[in-house]
Amino acid sequence: CPVVVIAHESHPGTAELVGGAVMRAALTTNMPEGVFSLLYGGGRTVGISVVQHPVIQAVGFTGSRSGGTALMAAAANREQPIPVYAEMSSVNPVVILPGALERGETALAEAFFGSLTLGVGQFCTNPGLLFLPEGKGFGFIERLRELVTAATPGTMLNAGICQAYADTVEAVASTEGVQTIARATAAAGQGAPAVFSVSLRRFLEADLLRGEMFGPGTLIVRGSLEEIEAAIPELEGQLTATVHGTAEELAAHASLVTALESRAGRLIFNSFPTGVEVCHSMVHGGPFPATSDGRSTSVGTMAIHRFTRAVAWQGFPDACLPAELQEGNSLGIRRLVDGEFV
Amino acid sequence: CPVVVIAHESHPGTAELVGGAVMRAALTTNMPEGVFSLLYGGGRTVGISVVQHPVIQAVGFTGSRSGGTALMAAAANREQPIPVYAEMSSVNPVVILPGALERGETALAEAFFGSLTLGVGQFCTNPGLLFLPEGKGFGFIERLRELVTAATPGTMLNAGICQAYADTVEAVASTEGVQTIARATAAAGQGAPAVFSVSLRRFLEADLLRGEMFGPGTLIVRGSLEEIEAAIPELEGQLTATVHGTAEELAAHASLVTALESRAGRLIFNSFPTGVEVCHSMVHGGPFPATSDGRSTSVGTMAIHRFTRAVAWQGFPDACLPAELQEGNSLGIRRLVDGEFV
Repeated sequence: CPVVVIAHESHPGTAELVGGAVMRAALTTNMPEGVFSLLYGGGRTVGISVVQHPVIQAVGFTGSRSGGTALMAAAANREQPIPVYAEMSSVNPVVILPGALERGETALAEAFFGSLTLGVGQFCTNPGLLFLPEGKGFGFIERLRELVTAATPGTMLNAGICQAYADTVEAVASTEGVQTIARATAAAGQGAPAVFSVSLRRFLEADLLRGEMFGPGTLIVRGSLEEIEAAIPELEGQLTATVHGTAEELAAHASLVTALESRAGRLIFNSFPTGVEVCHSMVHGGPFPATSDGRSTSVGTMAIHRFTRAVAWQGFPDACLPAELQEGNSLGIRRLVDGEFV
Repeated sequence: CPVVVIAHESHPGTAELVGGAVMRAALTTNMPEGVFSLLYGGGRTVGISVVQHPVIQAVGFTGSRSGGTALMAAAANREQPIPVYAEMSSVNPVVILPGALERGETALAEAFFGSLTLGVGQFCTNPGLLFLPEGKGFGFIERLRELVTAATPGTMLNAGICQAYADTVEAVASTEGVQTIARATAAAGQGAPAVFSVSLRRFLEADLLRGEMFGPGTLIVRGSLEEIEAAIPELEGQLTATVHGTAEELAAHASLVTALESRAGRLIFNSFPTGVEVCHSMVHGGPFPATSDGRSTSVGTMAIHRFTRAVAWQGFPDACLPAELQEGNSLGIRRLVDGEFV
């Protein structure tokens, strides 16, 4: 079906390059005229108008929670409501088990810092929340402090994102019970890495601390493993959830993993959430508000289900069926026939 | 996951029998306590309260458009919005091609009458709209007229449904350009079969005529095959769409079938829409307002997707994966590995 893309106003040049590539591909593969359109400008006004147009049948969006929920409301209030796949916010919790620290706190801190600062922290899978066992990991924190203090701040996508990040970091820093581990200094337009720490009890009391700092900021939450497990159900939906530890620890904390599974679309062991592969097993989605529709993924082959609708054909002569349903199976696709895959 | 069912107030006894059977099955199969609950009474108030409760994660509903859209609004306005699968209204268009009439108008009328009056017309797949080629099918209409005139009206589910049916039939009968072919007479609480006829041009002008008469009422729309095909995109979403004719006619009118496919979840050839089989190929769903979510089905094995969410497990040791993902495949399920089904 035809696709309409609205270019982000912060990178019109990139949008034009990508749009041109898509148009050339459409021409090369003899797609029908109008199969792809690229619109510029107008921000939310244009977006809402497109979502409200009767020919539009599904919506994909990545951006802020306010932008995404505005599109959801517009889609739900149409005469014919349509699905909205909005990716809105995720703090991507990381749980560090003691065994991971025993393998080497310095290397773990360096790898974590790499994930935290990738793209000036502007990845939807950026690790904005780190659960660390109480009384352990001081070497991890110390190395992270060094790295953040010495970090080179990067330029963020636009002034609005940069200001929102600075405001959120300031709000977290001034929340009662929050300790600033390290903050880099930044010039105008730049996002400076920042690391904070708070007790688990205090974390659960302050709603602000469970929200997203969109940028290279993270909050370390300190508690016992029992408290950490009990806190997971209090988190909103996430794109990813990560555990670092040993295989034995995983087995011993199966209920912690089960709790994380209920809150996220992708569970990661001994790696970092930034990085998304286009493959069959990819799920880039998760419970609200990570996405508005946790049933699907925006990356990976399963993403096609966002734009499909099942239709049953009953009693049609073989020759009048769509090619994919005909007995001859001329398209060579896998088919389910009377419950058997053939 | 646990399921909460709200009994319909019009059949508490049936609900109790079914609920008891489900409870016995849950006990026999060692399901956890609380896996199934049956609530009584309160109608929409109870329904909305349940939908708004934070532990509820998905909603299925069959009923009126006003009831379904109220649940959709409640679900969309939750802090965490959830999917609603509401089956709300469908007029299930049937298109008669000339070849079907040539096979025998009397038999076709009798079969159509059987589908129209099944369950006093209270099937969601009841054929409430019949497109008939202009200048043909007088024998079909005449036999239908005889059957309806002689019909024994049946008792409908409750007084509200019965009154709504009577009111809608009256409104259709008094719409300009509508001709009454036949109406049976009914006692209080009964639904009397009714057949009307209208020109295609007039049908497209009067919004009322494209709505649902929930009961044994149908509207015959007369036009050329070209006009009929052009009218299909003007219809709302449907659970079913049916074509009667010959294989040659189907091939000659492929674009009519394509138009019907865009409006319905199940396409039927030379049969009748009433009747739903629980099987792999079943789709009982369709574009809004047939259902609130045309991506899924309420009947058939694919229905399980309504209540699932994909999760990717990255980097986990084999022994710590859910059984269905482990290399040993102890559950013996079909798996997609690196793009190959094994």
